[in-house]
Amino acid sequence: MSAAPAVSQEGPLALICGGGSLPLAIADSVSARGRQVLLFPLQGIARPEDYAQRPHTWVRIAKFGTLARAARAAGCHEMVLIGSLVRPAFWQVRFDLTTLKLLPRIAAAFRGGDDYLLSSGARLIEEQGFRVLGAHEVAPEILVPKGALARVQPSEGERADIALGFDYLHATGPFDVGQAVVVAGRHVLAVEAAEGTDQMLERIAALRASGHIRASTVGGVLVKAPKRGQDRRFDLPSIGPRTVEGAARAGLAGIAVVAGSTIVAEPERLIAAADRANIFVVGLPAGSEQ
Amino acid sequence: MSAAPAVSQEGPLALICGGGSLPLAIADSVSARGRQVLLFPLQGIARPEDYAQRPHTWVRIAKFGTLARAARAAGCHEMVLIGSLVRPAFWQVRFDLTTLKLLPRIAAAFRGGDDYLLSSGARLIEEQGFRVLGAHEVAPEILVPKGALARVQPSEGERADIALGFDYLHATGPFDVGQAVVVAGRHVLAVEAAEGTDQMLERIAALRASGHIRASTVGGVLVKAPKRGQDRRFDLPSIGPRTVEGAARAGLAGIAVVAGSTIVAEPERLIAAADRANIFVVGLPAGSEQ
Repeated sequence: MSAAPAVSQEGPLALICGGGSLPLAIADSVSARGRQVLLFPLQGIARPEDYAQRPHTWVRIAKFGTLARAARAAGCHEMVLIGSLVRPAFWQVRFDLTTLKLLPRIAAAFRGGDDYLLSSGARLIEEQGFRVLGAHEVAPEILVPKGALARVQPSEGERADIALGFDYLHATGPFDVGQAVVVAGRHVLAVEAAEGTDQMLERIAALRASGHIRASTVGGVLVKAPKRGQDRRFDLPSIGPRTVEGAARAGLAGIAVVAGSTIVAEPERLIAAADRANIFVVGLPAGSEQ
Repeated sequence: MSAAPAVSQEGPLALICGGGSLPLAIADSVSARGRQVLLFPLQGIARPEDYAQRPHTWVRIAKFGTLARAARAAGCHEMVLIGSLVRPAFWQVRFDLTTLKLLPRIAAAFRGGDDYLLSSGARLIEEQGFRVLGAHEVAPEILVPKGALARVQPSEGERADIALGFDYLHATGPFDVGQAVVVAGRHVLAVEAAEGTDQMLERIAALRASGHIRASTVGGVLVKAPKRGQDRRFDLPSIGPRTVEGAARAGLAGIAVVAGSTIVAEPERLIAAADRANIFVVGLPAGSEQ
């Protein structure tokens, strides 16, 4: 029963980095806790300029052998998959030997929804002897807390829109579709599916600019919720400064998410953007979405 | 018990015409049956060039007095509301005296969803002594029949996508949102809300062009269904040649709707477009969507 410090037991943490600013925020947070981080940006998904200033090793999806060897050589036992993913075309993927053996199961994963792809990926990594953690397990401060993050609070009408949004997302939970809707004046204006949150917000902005959205629906709320049965280790819904800017351009009054089940990238910049645009950002207690 | 021909009892039929080609198709069909049609295109919604060759009277939403007087003067007792509607901004509407008395209830209608707006409108018209009919009641041949309309038949995989689409629309029925989704490879790629079917299809085309849609989801199906509890007299889902062209541009394999509960505009042109694009258009028995 030796009581060695947790840090030395854990070894370095491998971060497999998708797109967006979140992977680097997590890397900084884990480093600040005194744990070494190995960055493995995904080729064709992470942006090269984001990694230019830091040690990193580019990896390819489905070339898990390279990644596994580099991680093992560094004494790493734990991995986190984080950042936005655009699912690659199956025929664009070039497989290495380690991965090739797993091909039938990968092909099956490609046929399923996003959740299935990610949890299959995690299972494959774990079979190679690594533990897959959620980003919020290594950097808990990235989760949205309860209450209003910025200055503005939602009105009563906006709270009714939020409730309707959570109801809708709850009803569509079994379908592994998007995790976000825009609701205004008790009316669902947009539902996110393959296009992602940013594009959905652009759509609202365009519909408003062209007069295609009803005048009864000024304002409105972006509502995001985790899907039921979703593997919390990855693919928790996330918001960041860009989400706030998109919501502001779409003329929305605010953003509502589930506290403790939503990742916030760059919280200071997000709060500044919300206060600039005069929109609210609230974390509601888990259970609000059910 | 005199047995006068139905035609003379009915008097002329008033058609309140929204956007699109459907109102004129219905007008032609009713005229061909020997019944006189009065066309009332809605200002700001119907296109003037579509009505240039026919007698018509422009009307404004919420100026029901003009419409009611013109219809009564012509001995008309029955009305049909047909065509696409873009909900007007409440403050852009100018009310006449007849309508002004009903203002509190109209305001309430504006706060509800589309279904509520339309059924409230129909109730107001009926209180003025008119009967409001569904377009399919005066022109039953506009309903999609059971089976494949064009040459191509859906594959087994496509039938599974169709079933998933109907399941999704059934689950979201209580929300008065859109009536259409795009499903490919057992994955919901897009959900229609305020943007309408044509724009949703454009989105799929754009996502595919930019490589943002997964390769596992080639093909795919546009699935449309009536909402539960929808007033069948108006707002039945509809398809037309434009829907087929949009589906083809989006790379879809076909279109599935509920037979007997979907309106088809310009069926000959729709079938020709489907055969040109090699995509299927099927009407499935009512109940498939439940």
